[in-house]
Amino acid sequence: MEYAAPVKDMRFTLEQIAGLAELAGLPGLGNADPEIVAAVLEEASKFAAGELSPLNRGGDQHGARVDNGVVRTAPGFAAAYKKFVEGGWNGMPFPEELGGGAMPWAVTMAAQEMVQAANLSFSLCPLLTQGAIDAIIAHGTDAQKALYLPKMVSGEWTGSMNLTEPQAGSDVGALKSKAVPVGDGTYKITGSKIFITYGEHDMADNIVHLVLARLPDAPAGTKGISLFIVPKFIPDENGNPGKRNDLRVVSLEHKLGIHASPTCVMSYGDNGDCIGWLLGTENQGMRCMFTMMNNARLSVGCQGLAIAERAFQQALDYASQRKQGRHPGMAADEHVAIIEHPDVRRTLMLMRSLTEACRGLIYLNAAAIDRAHHHPDEAERQRWKAMVELFTPLSKAWATDIGCEVASMGVQIHGGMGFIEETGAAQHYRDARILPIYEGTNGIQAIDLVTRKLPLNGGETVKALFGDIAATVAELAKAGEGFGATRQHLEAALTSLTGASQWMGGQLAKNPEAALAGATPFLRAFASTVGGWLLARQALAAKAEIAGGSTDPYFTAKIVSARVFAEQVLSAVDGLCRSATEGSAGLADVTPDLLRA
Amino acid sequence: MEYAAPVKDMRFTLEQIAGLAELAGLPGLGNADPEIVAAVLEEASKFAAGELSPLNRGGDQHGARVDNGVVRTAPGFAAAYKKFVEGGWNGMPFPEELGGGAMPWAVTMAAQEMVQAANLSFSLCPLLTQGAIDAIIAHGTDAQKALYLPKMVSGEWTGSMNLTEPQAGSDVGALKSKAVPVGDGTYKITGSKIFITYGEHDMADNIVHLVLARLPDAPAGTKGISLFIVPKFIPDENGNPGKRNDLRVVSLEHKLGIHASPTCVMSYGDNGDCIGWLLGTENQGMRCMFTMMNNARLSVGCQGLAIAERAFQQALDYASQRKQGRHPGMAADEHVAIIEHPDVRRTLMLMRSLTEACRGLIYLNAAAIDRAHHHPDEAERQRWKAMVELFTPLSKAWATDIGCEVASMGVQIHGGMGFIEETGAAQHYRDARILPIYEGTNGIQAIDLVTRKLPLNGGETVKALFGDIAATVAELAKAGEGFGATRQHLEAALTSLTGASQWMGGQLAKNPEAALAGATPFLRAFASTVGGWLLARQALAAKAEIAGGSTDPYFTAKIVSARVFAEQVLSAVDGLCRSATEGSAGLADVTPDLLRA
Repeated sequence: MEYAAPVKDMRFTLEQIAGLAELAGLPGLGNADPEIVAAVLEEASKFAAGELSPLNRGGDQHGARVDNGVVRTAPGFAAAYKKFVEGGWNGMPFPEELGGGAMPWAVTMAAQEMVQAANLSFSLCPLLTQGAIDAIIAHGTDAQKALYLPKMVSGEWTGSMNLTEPQAGSDVGALKSKAVPVGDGTYKITGSKIFITYGEHDMADNIVHLVLARLPDAPAGTKGISLFIVPKFIPDENGNPGKRNDLRVVSLEHKLGIHASPTCVMSYGDNGDCIGWLLGTENQGMRCMFTMMNNARLSVGCQGLAIAERAFQQALDYASQRKQGRHPGMAADEHVAIIEHPDVRRTLMLMRSLTEACRGLIYLNAAAIDRAHHHPDEAERQRWKAMVELFTPLSKAWATDIGCEVASMGVQIHGGMGFIEETGAAQHYRDARILPIYEGTNGIQAIDLVTRKLPLNGGETVKALFGDIAATVAELAKAGEGFGATRQHLEAALTSLTGASQWMGGQLAKNPEAALAGATPFLRAFASTVGGWLLARQALAAKAEIAGGSTDPYFTAKIVSARVFAEQVLSAVDGLCRSATEGSAGLADVTPDLLRA
Repeated sequence: MEYAAPVKDMRFTLEQIAGLAELAGLPGLGNADPEIVAAVLEEASKFAAGELSPLNRGGDQHGARVDNGVVRTAPGFAAAYKKFVEGGWNGMPFPEELGGGAMPWAVTMAAQEMVQAANLSFSLCPLLTQGAIDAIIAHGTDAQKALYLPKMVSGEWTGSMNLTEPQAGSDVGALKSKAVPVGDGTYKITGSKIFITYGEHDMADNIVHLVLARLPDAPAGTKGISLFIVPKFIPDENGNPGKRNDLRVVSLEHKLGIHASPTCVMSYGDNGDCIGWLLGTENQGMRCMFTMMNNARLSVGCQGLAIAERAFQQALDYASQRKQGRHPGMAADEHVAIIEHPDVRRTLMLMRSLTEACRGLIYLNAAAIDRAHHHPDEAERQRWKAMVELFTPLSKAWATDIGCEVASMGVQIHGGMGFIEETGAAQHYRDARILPIYEGTNGIQAIDLVTRKLPLNGGETVKALFGDIAATVAELAKAGEGFGATRQHLEAALTSLTGASQWMGGQLAKNPEAALAGATPFLRAFASTVGGWLLARQALAAKAEIAGGSTDPYFTAKIVSARVFAEQVLSAVDGLCRSATEGSAGLADVTPDLLRA
């Protein structure tokens, strides 16, 4: 079945969690007027459902193919990308002076979610371009900006990010590609890169590769890496694609999922004539990469959310159609739809609650980026910048884990049909599995949370967030009946999480290995608590709508969603915190030799 | 990398958990002499590693193919199956008078684990034969037994189980295939079946299909189903394959995994001449199916264990080889194997602990089958029969969920390489995903646990098991230091589980929907507790070995494995129990309309 964007829930989340009305009042974000946003999301949902979703299954089956150095994307992809560019979707979050839509990241994220849910493989092309644009905006010279940004913001040219080499994955500092200054301000680039998403394709006129490489005599490790702009076609004096640069796709990877996204092995400078231009300053390449990493990690988190939504929709539809079994007392030849069975309903509600909680986190994270950029008050900008830092590993790791888990539940709802590729549920399960890996593995996100984000501002950033959660607990206490054990579980989770955070903070100084060993369950506990908090806030808002006279069952569902999340997911937080803290002593005994014994 | 059977852990589990020495003393199980068992497992491990494991990746890539009504299995499969038959592996658990090896199921299960881990797709063929043999032993006439069993026990002929039809999956009673008595004792079978594993293939001389169908005027639902023997080639007077029966493979499914296992759409009686023989009595087909279901479900649980072991081995090997990152203080160009990183060690140890816990449960379950059949004391046989009933849904559901989860962890350990098919980790992830679905979905296992197994013998069966767990808690209390928080977590889990079990028992009478809604987290809590108990027992035995002078690091690892399981997995039991019980009120509000709102 085709994807249908959950526009109602997206808008409610934008309003209640991202604070859309407030965002629209910030300098430079006037385009986020609620009526415009509603119209934009409506258009985006039509594009996603009408143009991208129908290409998803065919893209999986056909895949991208390499033929004599040319990558052919799956049928329909190039035409759909043209429409994507024409619709102005690529430039949505970028400034108007670059031809962008000047929309908040929060609204952009909702549109991204639609594109990703409709066709994850397709969505990766603009995602990589977005990262390259961010890097050039932050670190490019005026000339570089003028040359590249207009065509990249429009989407006529796409971008690619070239970090990974066979020996340098998570450990980017181990890369060996070289850049030798020519003397005229350009550099000769040589080296091989792997896992380059849309490193070569037939959807755009030019591809702007951002390539990490080492200058001669650069220091070892991450301190000796520089970033280069390496266009496929070197722009001529009019800014049009000119001479073909000396770079090529070597092969495409044969992957578990996202078959339609070409994952390229790239070779630079086979003939000694690959020209690059330094982006930013020498040996500061890692800093440049980090500039865009928050945005990219958030977008990958959004992919997890998107796949969860897609898998939920498909499972809900199947469970509503598929007849199997009966209620007690029914005749042997009568049957009910499987959605009537309590275990199926439980699974579907869990899928929905998890998806909605991820949506809250992702949109809140995006809105924090907007406030960090646009808030008129410097202290507020700094405060939100820290919140972005804190939320990002949660968004990336948790939402992508949830994407995989919900996709797996979706397969399970389908029974035997879920294992048959024609059904489509299996594609989501396969596609989702890359998400916890790329853009920093989820293990690395957990380490980032514990070692860099907990200590932010001397711990005040985390403390402020916990204060916000406590305020919602207090609101729930005042809000009366109808929320089940939402408050109790949220309060208990916050207590456990607070204790675990303090423990982690203490270990960082005296026994960092112990903190690192528990980082993964700790992140899960942290993100679950935040997710439960955001659903509780939505439940309170939904109750106000009902009190105000609304009879829309969506609001009732919102209250149930928060409650089920609290009772089924927040109930696990204490155990996760105990695993992360009390369990560290046992994990300290786990040596490589013991693992192999 | 090729699979290497963990013979040491298999034997330790057989000795400590299955009670191998005691089994060998039971009437009819004399072949389970420890020395013979050791030799058998050594041989099995050579066969699995040398013959089956090398075919696994090629089988995945090539798949089984249907060509003009003939199914061609992947290259090497037919030859390997011939060796499997020649080695006597197919008959291992069956009586000697049928040509079998008269080995306990516990020992058989260890050998099965090897075959499944080496090549899951291959293992399905003998698994289906095993089910058909069980059914014929239990319900066949003497003539049927004489005609079919010798060739099926040897493996010269294979079996298939034909239950599912498009409208009849979990709800077997909805099936429509027909059987009309001819008057000479035979029946004419007509109908279509789907998801028929090894319904057609080129590995054996004959295929004995067991087909569920309805007699004319049979009652609706499960009470009107009969079971028929429908051979591909009708045996002639000498018992050799004779006339081709009127049945055929229509097509093969295109699946997420187990590509080398042909999943057939079968058609019976296209030309009105498909001959079947009644197995058991008319309209008792469901009872006949249940006869073999416990064994089949246990074997599927063993598949989950097997995939977990395989994924663990591969991840451990990769993590030991792959260099990435460094310890604090190391030079920027130095690197350590990723197994040195705390989060990777935590993941690997969790994979190992979960796998070992599943092994304990599966072998204990198998040994319970042996005692239920062979114990000289009728009361003991009954007691163990009830234990088999109780353990089976735990083995099937928990070990298959763990199989998927550990396979997913295995992908994650590989980072980006995990998503590349050539690495092999992704195949385990895809192959494993069928396990929670077939042979009764895990949701159905949870319902079975709650509605049929908790009430067994008025609750005494569960109570006895909990008593055994409490005894281990007491032993741990006496055993002194070195177990970390193993005892505390096991005791806490048992307390939570006991409370949840009582709650479930109470709901069954007054509000069964509430019990059903929480069945899945309840089963997880139950199985986790049993798994932790079995690891704790092994840890106690390992400590005794060390106290006795052993310096084998395997025993130290065993103690750590139990501890890590307790601290990382048992710590979740209380939350799961709360989800299952306190969460039921919230789930009661989850109606189909609300899910769609």
